Amino acid sequence: MRVAGLPPLSKLGEFGLIRYLGGRFGRTSASVLCGIGDDAAIVQPLSHRELLVTTDLLVEGIHFQSGTASFADIGYKAAVANLSDIAAMGGSPDYILVSLAIPPQRTTQNIDQLYHGLMEACRREKVDLIGGDTSASHQALFIGVTLIGSAKPGHALRRTGARAGDLLYVSGTLGDSLAGLSLIENQRGRGDAKLPREHRRYLVGRHLRPTPRLRLGRILSSTKVATSAIDISDGLGGDLSRLCEASAVGAEIDQGAIPCSAACRAYAALSHIDPIQLALRGGEDYELLFTVAPRHARKVKQLARQAKCPVTCVGVVKPKAHGIQIRQRTGILKPLNVQSYEHFQNTKRPAKHR
Amino acid sequence: MRVAGLPPLSKLGEFGLIRYLGGRFGRTSASVLCGIGDDAAIVQPLSHRELLVTTDLLVEGIHFQSGTASFADIGYKAAVANLSDIAAMGGSPDYILVSLAIPPQRTTQNIDQLYHGLMEACRREKVDLIGGDTSASHQALFIGVTLIGSAKPGHALRRTGARAGDLLYVSGTLGDSLAGLSLIENQRGRGDAKLPREHRRYLVGRHLRPTPRLRLGRILSSTKVATSAIDISDGLGGDLSRLCEASAVGAEIDQGAIPCSAACRAYAALSHIDPIQLALRGGEDYELLFTVAPRHARKVKQLARQAKCPVTCVGVVKPKAHGIQIRQRTGILKPLNVQSYEHFQNTKRPAKHR
Repeated sequence: MRVAGLPPLSKLGEFGLIRYLGGRFGRTSASVLCGIGDDAAIVQPLSHRELLVTTDLLVEGIHFQSGTASFADIGYKAAVANLSDIAAMGGSPDYILVSLAIPPQRTTQNIDQLYHGLMEACRREKVDLIGGDTSASHQALFIGVTLIGSAKPGHALRRTGARAGDLLYVSGTLGDSLAGLSLIENQRGRGDAKLPREHRRYLVGRHLRPTPRLRLGRILSSTKVATSAIDISDGLGGDLSRLCEASAVGAEIDQGAIPCSAACRAYAALSHIDPIQLALRGGEDYELLFTVAPRHARKVKQLARQAKCPVTCVGVVKPKAHGIQIRQRTGILKPLNVQSYEHFQNTKRPAKHR
Repeated sequence: MRVAGLPPLSKLGEFGLIRYLGGRFGRTSASVLCGIGDDAAIVQPLSHRELLVTTDLLVEGIHFQSGTASFADIGYKAAVANLSDIAAMGGSPDYILVSLAIPPQRTTQNIDQLYHGLMEACRREKVDLIGGDTSASHQALFIGVTLIGSAKPGHALRRTGARAGDLLYVSGTLGDSLAGLSLIENQRGRGDAKLPREHRRYLVGRHLRPTPRLRLGRILSSTKVATSAIDISDGLGGDLSRLCEASAVGAEIDQGAIPCSAACRAYAALSHIDPIQLALRGGEDYELLFTVAPRHARKVKQLARQAKCPVTCVGVVKPKAHGIQIRQRTGILKPLNVQSYEHFQNTKRPAKHR
């Protein structure tokens, strides 16, 4: 939805922009006692809940490119990055705060669209926009998002609970987002022209509008079926290694079991790349990686059906000394070579965040 | 305090940096069930408290210059900007999250110092560092801070409670921060050489290390003596106009009553400027502007002594139709010409934020 006739930022001014955004997007459910427009927001926390708090800073040219995504898409994904963190804790998202540093070339319309995308991602979960900050920026657009959620006391899923013998599961399919990004960045690239249009649409959609797995996360935490969880924002390899580090365990994953979509496999075949590499190294799938005691193997499938989110067992947790290994299609075990995006080394991996 | 032999960011990497910062600065009081290192922090909210949430995004070259402040000073003030928001609500700050986008020229030592300054400002109030995010930035350093505090239900001070007839008070002295900034930026500037060293030190200190008025804010809210409050981060003129707008009132302030320090007056005299202009237009004083029913005029002085923070009555709240006027030293009333920093108009006012 576009809003006609928005005044330019220079006319609206910082406080005019805050008033406009607050009026248009500032939601106020009953628990928000004071939203946008004071020195701080005031909220009435839900009784008998633990608070979950996560924050992400997204940088133009690093996490997103304004040339390859609309402002609504950029906003949508900024929200999902945080919603997915709450999903990985098994919680419910409640309140969002959004800060922007806006370079001179951006218009009120751009900012309006960005917030529109952000709040679209939040709508299903009825997240209230309760605050933020706006500032000028000399060059790039910066988006700071803070999301506050809640969980039943003692039920939040942590990265630290995996035990040797637990089964390793992932939700959905992996690698789609990186395939979608490659399609967007490389319009006439390798094999792209031959890719059926519906595959292309699916992969680009998975990159631009990923789904935070909130329902699955909540079912896994409320039933206490998962022993640990992390969201896959950095490729299965990187996030598995972080889960293992936090839980002081090793892992063995089965290459043949890693779920890739038909679209991702078709894209990979046409591009002469291994779809498993997209799954292991691709960022921004925003699926969940979680561990489950073997006795719950049947139950987890049933819960996944309830959450309307497919899950796949991709391996097993091992003692720490085992390291992290991947069983190749030949049956041979090899150490998993973890390559994930490194912010401070100028590597050329695609944009994603944490 | 400096830490010798920190590895470079390119070697430490994003996750190494998070581990280092979490280990060195991540505080964990009993209410923090899970701090830095998971998808989200988990905290146990205090029972029978309302939550206060504020966030600020600070941009190098706009809110701060790395050439005129140390990284510890930059971090200190980033924390104060948020602590002061909680002070203006009459609350207690509890948890902080800090996100950084770091350009290539910055070192691990710079980031360590920045966090050191941040946590120094938080120490007195025992604020826990519970999360954040780190990313690369192409050019400028960006600092996103989110602060979560709490207040007794129904006691938080808002901007909306001022009523015609209330007295207008400010804490401390105004204009010091802008005078300090001018001294830093203009080392051999107007009148500077003749300014006594202790005045210079005082003004620069007020700019680099301002004091959030948390104790005063809490006393004003817990006793219900103040009817409204805002922090002065944008000059008395700008913040008074925002308070009046939120409360739908006008105001009359008395130029002769506006408190300026001896150092600020000495600086202004040597620079041939009016110290009142520094007070009205200067940002980043982080004093409180608040309103009090006239029957509490004696009580507010007593509470200020208790909070060890001087307060001065600078005017009175008027009906909205009155507008905002300033009584000049000649006795003549004039409309207050509000000039505050405008982020989207490339004005050349000093860096400050909101």
